Amino acid sequence: MVVRVAVAGASGYAGGELLRLLLAHPEARIGALTGNSNAGQRLGALQSHLLPLADRVLEPTTAEALAGHDVVFLALPHGQSAAVAEQLGPDVLVIDMGADFRLKDPGDWEAFYGSPHAGTWPYGLPELPGGRDALEGSRRVAVPGCYPTAVSLALFPAYAAGLAEPEAVIVASSGTSGAGKAPKPHLLGSEVMGSMSPYGVGGVHRHTPEMIQNLSAAAGERVSVSFTPTLAPMPRGILATCSAKARPGATAESVRAAYEKAFADEPFVHLLPEGQWPATGSVQGSNAVQIQVAYDAAAGRIIAISAIDNLTKGTAGGAVQSMNIALGLDETTGLTTIGVAP
Amino acid sequence: MVVRVAVAGASGYAGGELLRLLLAHPEARIGALTGNSNAGQRLGALQSHLLPLADRVLEPTTAEALAGHDVVFLALPHGQSAAVAEQLGPDVLVIDMGADFRLKDPGDWEAFYGSPHAGTWPYGLPELPGGRDALEGSRRVAVPGCYPTAVSLALFPAYAAGLAEPEAVIVASSGTSGAGKAPKPHLLGSEVMGSMSPYGVGGVHRHTPEMIQNLSAAAGERVSVSFTPTLAPMPRGILATCSAKARPGATAESVRAAYEKAFADEPFVHLLPEGQWPATGSVQGSNAVQIQVAYDAAAGRIIAISAIDNLTKGTAGGAVQSMNIALGLDETTGLTTIGVAP
Amino acid sequence: MVVRVAVAGASGYAGGELLRLLLAHPEARIGALTGNSNAGQRLGALQSHLLPLADRVLEPTTAEALAGHDVVFLALPHGQSAAVAEQLGPDVLVIDMGADFRLKDPGDWEAFYGSPHAGTWPYGLPELPGGRDALEGSRRVAVPGCYPTAVSLALFPAYAAGLAEPEAVIVASSGTSGAGKAPKPHLLGSEVMGSMSPYGVGGVHRHTPEMIQNLSAAAGERVSVSFTPTLAPMPRGILATCSAKARPGATAESVRAAYEKAFADEPFVHLLPEGQWPATGSVQGSNAVQIQVAYDAAAGRIIAISAIDNLTKGTAGGAVQSMNIALGLDETTGLTTIGVAP
Amino acid sequence: MVVRVAVAGASGYAGGELLRLLLAHPEARIGALTGNSNAGQRLGALQSHLLPLADRVLEPTTAEALAGHDVVFLALPHGQSAAVAEQLGPDVLVIDMGADFRLKDPGDWEAFYGSPHAGTWPYGLPELPGGRDALEGSRRVAVPGCYPTAVSLALFPAYAAGLAEPEAVIVASSGTSGAGKAPKPHLLGSEVMGSMSPYGVGGVHRHTPEMIQNLSAAAGERVSVSFTPTLAPMPRGILATCSAKARPGATAESVRAAYEKAFADEPFVHLLPEGQWPATGSVQGSNAVQIQVAYDAAAGRIIAISAIDNLTKGTAGGAVQSMNIALGLDETTGLTTIGVAP
Repeated sequence: MVVRVAVAGASGYAGGELLRLLLAHPEARIGALTGNSNAGQRLGALQSHLLPLADRVLEPTTAEALAGHDVVFLALPHGQSAAVAEQLGPDVLVIDMGADFRLKDPGDWEAFYGSPHAGTWPYGLPELPGGRDALEGSRRVAVPGCYPTAVSLALFPAYAAGLAEPEAVIVASSGTSGAGKAPKPHLLGSEVMGSMSPYGVGGVHRHTPEMIQNLSAAAGERVSVSFTPTLAPMPRGILATCSAKARPGATAESVRAAYEKAFADEPFVHLLPEGQWPATGSVQGSNAVQIQVAYDAAAGRIIAISAIDNLTKGTAGGAVQSMNIALGLDETTGLTTIGVAP
Repeated sequence: MVVRVAVAGASGYAGGELLRLLLAHPEARIGALTGNSNAGQRLGALQSHLLPLADRVLEPTTAEALAGHDVVFLALPHGQSAAVAEQLGPDVLVIDMGADFRLKDPGDWEAFYGSPHAGTWPYGLPELPGGRDALEGSRRVAVPGCYPTAVSLALFPAYAAGLAEPEAVIVASSGTSGAGKAPKPHLLGSEVMGSMSPYGVGGVHRHTPEMIQNLSAAAGERVSVSFTPTLAPMPRGILATCSAKARPGATAESVRAAYEKAFADEPFVHLLPEGQWPATGSVQGSNAVQIQVAYDAAAGRIIAISAIDNLTKGTAGGAVQSMNIALGLDETTGLTTIGVAP
Repeated sequence: MVVRVAVAGASGYAGGELLRLLLAHPEARIGALTGNSNAGQRLGALQSHLLPLADRVLEPTTAEALAGHDVVFLALPHGQSAAVAEQLGPDVLVIDMGADFRLKDPGDWEAFYGSPHAGTWPYGLPELPGGRDALEGSRRVAVPGCYPTAVSLALFPAYAAGLAEPEAVIVASSGTSGAGKAPKPHLLGSEVMGSMSPYGVGGVHRHTPEMIQNLSAAAGERVSVSFTPTLAPMPRGILATCSAKARPGATAESVRAAYEKAFADEPFVHLLPEGQWPATGSVQGSNAVQIQVAYDAAAGRIIAISAIDNLTKGTAGGAVQSMNIALGLDETTGLTTIGVAP
Repeated sequence: MVVRVAVAGASGYAGGELLRLLLAHPEARIGALTGNSNAGQRLGALQSHLLPLADRVLEPTTAEALAGHDVVFLALPHGQSAAVAEQLGPDVLVIDMGADFRLKDPGDWEAFYGSPHAGTWPYGLPELPGGRDALEGSRRVAVPGCYPTAVSLALFPAYAAGLAEPEAVIVASSGTSGAGKAPKPHLLGSEVMGSMSPYGVGGVHRHTPEMIQNLSAAAGERVSVSFTPTLAPMPRGILATCSAKARPGATAESVRAAYEKAFADEPFVHLLPEGQWPATGSVQGSNAVQIQVAYDAAAGRIIAISAIDNLTKGTAGGAVQSMNIALGLDETTGLTTIGVAP
């Protein structure tokens, strides 16, 4: 199968990671690459790590440029995907790496994004219960946020197995690429190296309703989420430390069993052997998810920790995985569970 | 006042930071510097940042070497302080930067350290309720652990004001110096740069009972603690993200007021203006504590976040602060709230 | 073609990187993995980024374990390769990633390594003049050192074209993985993060005679080398800043032309467009070499700068590239010029 | 003595470091703090590490604001100092931390900065031969550039002693704070962490003529300089690796002797014992300079390496040191040779 692929928003970190993966995808043929502020520039000047594409030139993001492809990935700022997607036919697979189509509840969207809700597309996290069914044959996919990917995978088994109370407490650290490539003072190397700091504290981070949506679906009841993101001095990676009070009757064994069952057949999620803990460095550049879970009897809590690469499984790798499922390809095509470490 | 000071364990990170501070302390005269494996070496080869002490030579840690000082700081591996302290007279101020004398409950000590309990000394966290009283005139001080310093300061106001349920959930990130200077594979630069990982998960970290001790004292009832430490790719700093369910009636205003009251007169604790968040980079090398607190109405939780330098306020700075109080000096002598940033 | 491959020394950084590449190599079948101090351990505990090999167990490095493979890679400490290689038949392709067989002059070996010279094998840097010829069909390959790879590629065109005086001055920065996985105090994360320092200054670094050997061959006369390595706060990458006095008649144009000619057909070496400079981050995890050259008329010097990943092109990728040539496979099989950035 | 000090340009990295040092200076009273784009903002929001100044508010940079001070420091973009300095009386000590008044040759200025030359002020590097004489009693000081500080101190002893040929080759790595606080894409944490890259290659960096000026003065003849700066993944620090061909008759002993003599009485320059090498981490936050020198007999070159903190000795510390000399204070007042490490 030859899959002609266009990327709208090829100059940012998400777009660059997507191109890195597509270059290694045996079926993908990279077609139009578009950008707006960077249109007319060589990709070699914008993404100097993508040597085979160095001489490609960015086009403006127009319907004409994106026409004639089987798949169009949108790596655009929030709120811009709907207008582009409308111009693409129903047979084109459109994969939105932004937030626009992730949330089911228009009220959530409006409360957190402050603009009218564009709609809801099938959600690209196949490891969730029923996740693959929603994607097979679909021609629209909403790629999950990077934090919701890490958090939902870490906690849904506890909720799906009825082992946890519906109040999750989550602290997650992200590398700086999650904040994008637009230069801002607090993202300067001088500021982030050697320092950790939180942001979006107190329930205001936009990924919060997406986590609630996923965990509530797994639990069969509304799960509240206290989410605190922190910025870590590294370019890539998310480490999500998630916990919830254990329900009566939960034990270390039942918790472990629930996680083993949830991930037994998953190609990308690796429940680590007991005694070993996730490290973001181990999944750098890979689509793998490392997960470990513990039961703290004294505190009465289940602690589940996941490590992903925010740009790979957290964004572009998740997008390619969903593309594979939607097109009927093997889900792992062009993706790897091998990290670049150290 | 001239204070003659000896440091047992001058070759490690805690000892080095202590010497850095003592060099800037107007009353301190640095006397004996001891070590065991490094005895006989020039300090310049072991602590090349301490230029004024470069030609000093480490002596073995013996009673003779430590005799004749007003203050003896112990920066020794856990379990070794009691034997040294016994040899020092009751008029000598002995300040233990290790864990040996922090815990009140021998059962806690034995459960977490696996050896007989050496005793309990006045606890060197003056910002806690009643904290200064315990230190004034004392000749023995147990310096708090780095994590308990960050966590106790972040959460005690909520407990002291009766605003929080007695179940705290804490995720804290530490720079690598907290793990010491003994070379271990997982602490290599190649392993830690670009990676975050947890350790001591599930209630097993040795600082857990110390946090419970402090928060329970503030709350007047037993507080359970779920504590997850993570190793961050930076040399220094602790960012502690702490939360607890708010008690009925707690509001954003009452929470803010409790924190303002708790820290109004504290020279080292800085409750940030609303909208600004702690950053470990801002307190690097300083004895300052940056704290911010939020009330997440949707999740019903109080989130309190602190940033300290683990080696300064978290260890050596806290030790000097306690020394000042014990000796009747101004508490801030030789200490600063000015960080080295960026 | 199915190529059965064994790796002696699979627990270190070079061995880990080699396995990462071999997992992506379409013809390679990974056979025996050996180690000595780590024999009996799961690879998942030693190389947690290599998920597909997590359940493989290291065997001791013996002739029996290494028998029955088409290719044996040696990632052993200096001085240990000869004894292992002797036990392998002449039809087995043996690729030594250590230093033992790189130098032609036994006197150089003895002066820098202090032990008897084991011999000289075909040198695995195909981009050098005549480099490929030496490797085709060979059953023994000495993989170049990481610094000599970066330096030789940066400077040989100037020498081959007769543009530079035979006195090269080189300052190169390496990530910490170049120093290996054995824990040493100065390699701790606490020590290397936020700091740069030189080592092996004054002509004593062991890679110096290898650089002299390569550059002298290109120049047709003995080239002296002043080489200063520095340790940089990053896990991977070498940035080599190399310069030499320009010979009379050299111009910016003739220098540029020499470099364009040298690398015109090279699949892995990318001479950057004028105005763009190499960055180690852009070649992370890739076999690419980024090179740029400038002519400083005022100082009368040619400055050539290269960036490689020390573990990939600098070690394991170079080894796979040589394997491909020796076996008659396409030289680029299993290798990429796409970096993992940011 | 009470010294009333104003800082024009208090929101950047140089200004912030200067304030950090002035807060520890026993004679300085911090007066007006000015900025242009940030006028009206609290310093606590701009320099959150300077807790004692958190509530100070930036004023616009005007003659009125700067009036009434004994010392005015200018931390302004290049080319803006002259206009401000003109408005300050001849009795005010004006210390320019920018480049405007460093160069003696108007042609050099115009060639490298492209604007008319503003003049030449006494040069604030007291360790150079005759350096202190020029500063005593002066009311105008040009603070050296950060690279020229590191390079000139590393190499002038070799030139002053007639041991080196007049062609220096210099490669220096700087932390990112040297590039300032204005956000630019290539300075993002995502770009700089894990990567090294050169810039200003081929003799075009603006600090080149300043190095030539200093080294030529020491040598008594024109010294050519090949200078390559590289950006290192750390916030602070410069490591300068400098070399020159040794003159006939130079020996390891004569080189060492020249350096010992040059720095014997210097309070801030520390020639390390043989076998120990400079590390930028060891001088972080301090005014110290670590220097080591080697003679490479095989290559016939002298290699001198220095480590400084680019913001301290390289900018603000050097400025305070010059202020002390100009005002007749002890040169070391308010400055330290103690680094913040690890």
